[in-house]
Amino acid sequence: MMRDAPATLRIELAERSYGIVIGEGLLDDADILTRYVTARDALVVTNVTVGPLYAERLVEALTGKRVRTLALPDGEQYKTLDVLGRVFDALVEARLNRDACVIALGGGVVGDMAGFAAACYQRGIDFVQVPTTLLAQVDSAVGGKTGINHAGGKNLIGAFHQPRAVISDLATLRSLPPRELRAGLAEVIKYGLVDDAEFLAWIERHVEALLALDMQALGYAVRRSCEIKARIVAADEHEHGQRALLNLGHTFGHAIETATGYGEWLHGEAVAVGMLLAADLSQRMGFLDAKDLERIRILLRRAGLPDTAPRIGATHAFELMGMDKKVLQGRIRLVLLSRLGAGMISGDYPADALQETLRTYFEAAA
Amino acid sequence: MMRDAPATLRIELAERSYGIVIGEGLLDDADILTRYVTARDALVVTNVTVGPLYAERLVEALTGKRVRTLALPDGEQYKTLDVLGRVFDALVEARLNRDACVIALGGGVVGDMAGFAAACYQRGIDFVQVPTTLLAQVDSAVGGKTGINHAGGKNLIGAFHQPRAVISDLATLRSLPPRELRAGLAEVIKYGLVDDAEFLAWIERHVEALLALDMQALGYAVRRSCEIKARIVAADEHEHGQRALLNLGHTFGHAIETATGYGEWLHGEAVAVGMLLAADLSQRMGFLDAKDLERIRILLRRAGLPDTAPRIGATHAFELMGMDKKVLQGRIRLVLLSRLGAGMISGDYPADALQETLRTYFEAAA
Repeated sequence: MMRDAPATLRIELAERSYGIVIGEGLLDDADILTRYVTARDALVVTNVTVGPLYAERLVEALTGKRVRTLALPDGEQYKTLDVLGRVFDALVEARLNRDACVIALGGGVVGDMAGFAAACYQRGIDFVQVPTTLLAQVDSAVGGKTGINHAGGKNLIGAFHQPRAVISDLATLRSLPPRELRAGLAEVIKYGLVDDAEFLAWIERHVEALLALDMQALGYAVRRSCEIKARIVAADEHEHGQRALLNLGHTFGHAIETATGYGEWLHGEAVAVGMLLAADLSQRMGFLDAKDLERIRILLRRAGLPDTAPRIGATHAFELMGMDKKVLQGRIRLVLLSRLGAGMISGDYPADALQETLRTYFEAAA
Repeated sequence: MMRDAPATLRIELAERSYGIVIGEGLLDDADILTRYVTARDALVVTNVTVGPLYAERLVEALTGKRVRTLALPDGEQYKTLDVLGRVFDALVEARLNRDACVIALGGGVVGDMAGFAAACYQRGIDFVQVPTTLLAQVDSAVGGKTGINHAGGKNLIGAFHQPRAVISDLATLRSLPPRELRAGLAEVIKYGLVDDAEFLAWIERHVEALLALDMQALGYAVRRSCEIKARIVAADEHEHGQRALLNLGHTFGHAIETATGYGEWLHGEAVAVGMLLAADLSQRMGFLDAKDLERIRILLRRAGLPDTAPRIGATHAFELMGMDKKVLQGRIRLVLLSRLGAGMISGDYPADALQETLRTYFEAAA
């Protein structure tokens, strides 16, 4: 089998800079793994779905190290303080010290929880991300955001904790349920919408190849997504400014996820619809035209993503948006589009226009 | 009543620099409070002992702000993930946003938990320490260490999160149980032992005044302790090197606290005995002479602090020390004294000497 050589990017964050390696078959590549996992002791945190597929191969490739594995239940509904406590228990039970490493093997939930545990254990130990979902490879594994959910909202509790490395094995995407692959594509589309019109056009040309698991197409999509995220994160690690652009669709999306309970809507699905709402509001403000909005809707449909919101009511949605982290001084700042391929952060939109957008998507048609 | 004007120190940590204000009657000094609590919304985290004494006065002095209060159960045994969850619940319930502030009103447990909650909530919001115990005023409120305990060890889970300010009202020490005042004195003595022989001699001259709540003496002891801690923390915020000096007696002390269960021994009491063990080992290595050791023992006794350890056995104590955060690559680094007034960090001590020290203090006399 012909494989492309792994691509390596770097996230530039001074002494916390790190590499992202993207390629096929990295999961049990001892050379690459031991280049980044330098600790003698490690805890692999995975879940009950991914663990049985890959944990043994990963552990065997970490030759000469003392490695334990912890499999968490699978699902966003387990991204809780209680389950986090189990990770702490495992770290203590393994008697891991400050020089140990946590390895996250799985999707965004595993990465967020393992990373948050690593951030807090002994006030911070190393961790390495081995993401096995498209969503994690293009988004959640990169950038240092870690955390858990609270009944009152997603990711309300967490830390910024940069990994030592992100090792993205594209081959693991072959075991990903198609629905999750599609949800990951939503974030890929986000990068195009918010930062790179050319990449957006590339996605439009390759969406079927991506859905068919064409490794070359996936490799490019992951790399380009990470490049965009890396540049933005390097400029604004703690989200004081432009990093918030990466939240396109997320404020609306969080409202959907919170209203329907974690697990019913996948994160990427909620973000897909959320991007459509952001585009709708941008159109009402005159930044996009009807053709742009239609182009987004068609792409989401081709990617197998939803383009309608659950009818939770505009008022309820607005309330749920109010609890979002992006609120400053009671004013909801949103990520909008000034054109396709360019996001902007704004708290300065007509309140009426927002209400119309919310009513259009969240109210039942008469 | 004649009062000294409040003293103000600064912890120099670049953009996270902050002030420590020390004086009588600061707790309801609206000028000073609102200078440091700039947020519109705040959550006061306190406990059921301190809250009824001071929370109302503090809240009233925060004029024009939206302030809620949460009283935690009182005691080290409640410094757990479960109780931390209650702080998160209160933050979410109050719908606090990223620009809100957590105010810790109480001792070290309240400060550690409130600070850790502030570190994690929305990945980090402001917090202000209003310490009401001597231990918190001279040690735990200063320096940015926050966290909770785990059944496997003290402070195993936490974060570095610097407060916006530390406001130490000396008058609150009048309501402190005498045993806790004495426990706080152990940390004051620590600063003398580890960094400042002159201060050590000053403590020897003023120990009775301190125990009698002489406000001038207390003011100087708090200020000098904070000065020493501030300098060391500024040089080494994340404890890569010399900050570990502040752990004199803590590795031994943690073993005592863990073995006896949190709550039986006060932290300062365990540290007092721990310092004696460190001095004992230092003497066996030829750094101190018998007179130095006796001088420490006498000072601890005059301060009403214990000078004998619980008979938990040398092996058990050693094991419990092994889980300490200060372990690197399996070798226990300890803080020793090269002379009175000068600490040193060493992993390079004779294993036999350590075992003799442990046997002397932890084994029952024949």
